[in-house]
Amino acid sequence: MSQNNTPTARLAALGLTLPPPPEPAAHYMPWLRSDDLIFLAGQTPKHGRELQFRGQVGQDLTIEEARKAAELCALRLLSALNDAAGGLENVEQVTKLTVFVNAAPGFADHPIVANGASDLIAHVLGPQGVHARSAVGASSLPGNAAVEVEAFARLKAQA
Amino acid sequence: MSQNNTPTARLAALGLTLPPPPEPAAHYMPWLRSDDLIFLAGQTPKHGRELQFRGQVGQDLTIEEARKAAELCALRLLSALNDAAGGLENVEQVTKLTVFVNAAPGFADHPIVANGASDLIAHVLGPQGVHARSAVGASSLPGNAAVEVEAFARLKAQA
Amino acid sequence: MSQNNTPTARLAALGLTLPPPPEPAAHYMPWLRSDDLIFLAGQTPKHGRELQFRGQVGQDLTIEEARKAAELCALRLLSALNDAAGGLENVEQVTKLTVFVNAAPGFADHPIVANGASDLIAHVLGPQGVHARSAVGASSLPGNAAVEVEAFARLKAQA
Repeated sequence: MSQNNTPTARLAALGLTLPPPPEPAAHYMPWLRSDDLIFLAGQTPKHGRELQFRGQVGQDLTIEEARKAAELCALRLLSALNDAAGGLENVEQVTKLTVFVNAAPGFADHPIVANGASDLIAHVLGPQGVHARSAVGASSLPGNAAVEVEAFARLKAQA
Repeated sequence: MSQNNTPTARLAALGLTLPPPPEPAAHYMPWLRSDDLIFLAGQTPKHGRELQFRGQVGQDLTIEEARKAAELCALRLLSALNDAAGGLENVEQVTKLTVFVNAAPGFADHPIVANGASDLIAHVLGPQGVHARSAVGASSLPGNAAVEVEAFARLKAQA
Repeated sequence: MSQNNTPTARLAALGLTLPPPPEPAAHYMPWLRSDDLIFLAGQTPKHGRELQFRGQVGQDLTIEEARKAAELCALRLLSALNDAAGGLENVEQVTKLTVFVNAAPGFADHPIVANGASDLIAHVLGPQGVHARSAVGASSLPGNAAVEVEAFARLKAQA
């Protein structure tokens, strides 16, 4: 694999860098490894500790803003996964995303919002980033975040 | 196992046939296999590409309609699982369903709705279809679907 | 490990005892084991069959009441896990909690509520109870429960 073809290079080509891994909270961990399976805690769209996108999608935020929010959640998931795997090249597969969209009754465009997360992960990880997904509406989210995304992944056996 | 005792025969006895497997969307897959574990993407109650049950349960739809919607989600999950496993007889266990019900505050009958999915899967797969479950209210769902159901399953080791 | 250091002793020191394991419902199981992975069905805050905390958090219940509700959900998850594992000492890791909070739009304190579940499980199981977590708002929950918590866990290989 050439240098240009690494997850890190693909992030750089998007003008992105991995943020520091999410800090463990007092009460739970940003990721938990069990055998080769990684359980990734739900991430909201933060820069550092600062929530970037708040409110209900379709009311307080546009769908496009929410798509960016989902992308930011995914960037934080990638950072947690990088930490869990000791490098994104050790990820065998991101197997599942669940995308919770803070949205009012009648909102219907969850898939467009969720694509913000799916596209980033598939682009950065390539075939290893292709995943199953659920996208649903949440009546509210921590800190009044617009989006929260959680994930499952598997590491390469030797990782 | 006699022919009458196959998952396909039990579907036929209910007057049901498996629809074609859900198509991969541009951005994610209807199922992802990792080792023997299958992650099944959330399914809404569609015939082909046509959503059949829209709106909030208890307001726009009756509980009985929502139960039928959950059954239709489950039929699509079975189709995805059939595709993943190369035949439903290769499923070791459906381990978990999560049922999201598009419902207004105060709605309390999620278990009745969710039984529409649980009953179909348990009936068609027999002991291999008995599962753990969560049922919760979503403030909204993709396309304004009434119900969305996702699942985890395990394949037989040789499958 | 001294007797004072067992999960059961730590429960007793909190003045808690494990309730009887949740009964299988007609349509699904309180837990499903597949290989060493345990899928734990969503639990609401019940004593026996009696739901203890109903309504929307922040409106019908205080955050502190909701935290207690989450703790009660967690106690029921521990009971199910004890049943699944043949004793809590056979649990290798609780890997993930998902905490659904019955809350109105704009509610933001899901993490405080969810800590009621996380703290109990981490305290009782020690390092084996440290987990990844998602906390989200549900528009409604079964029986109008205030909180529902589901979990994934792994058993020790020999269990």
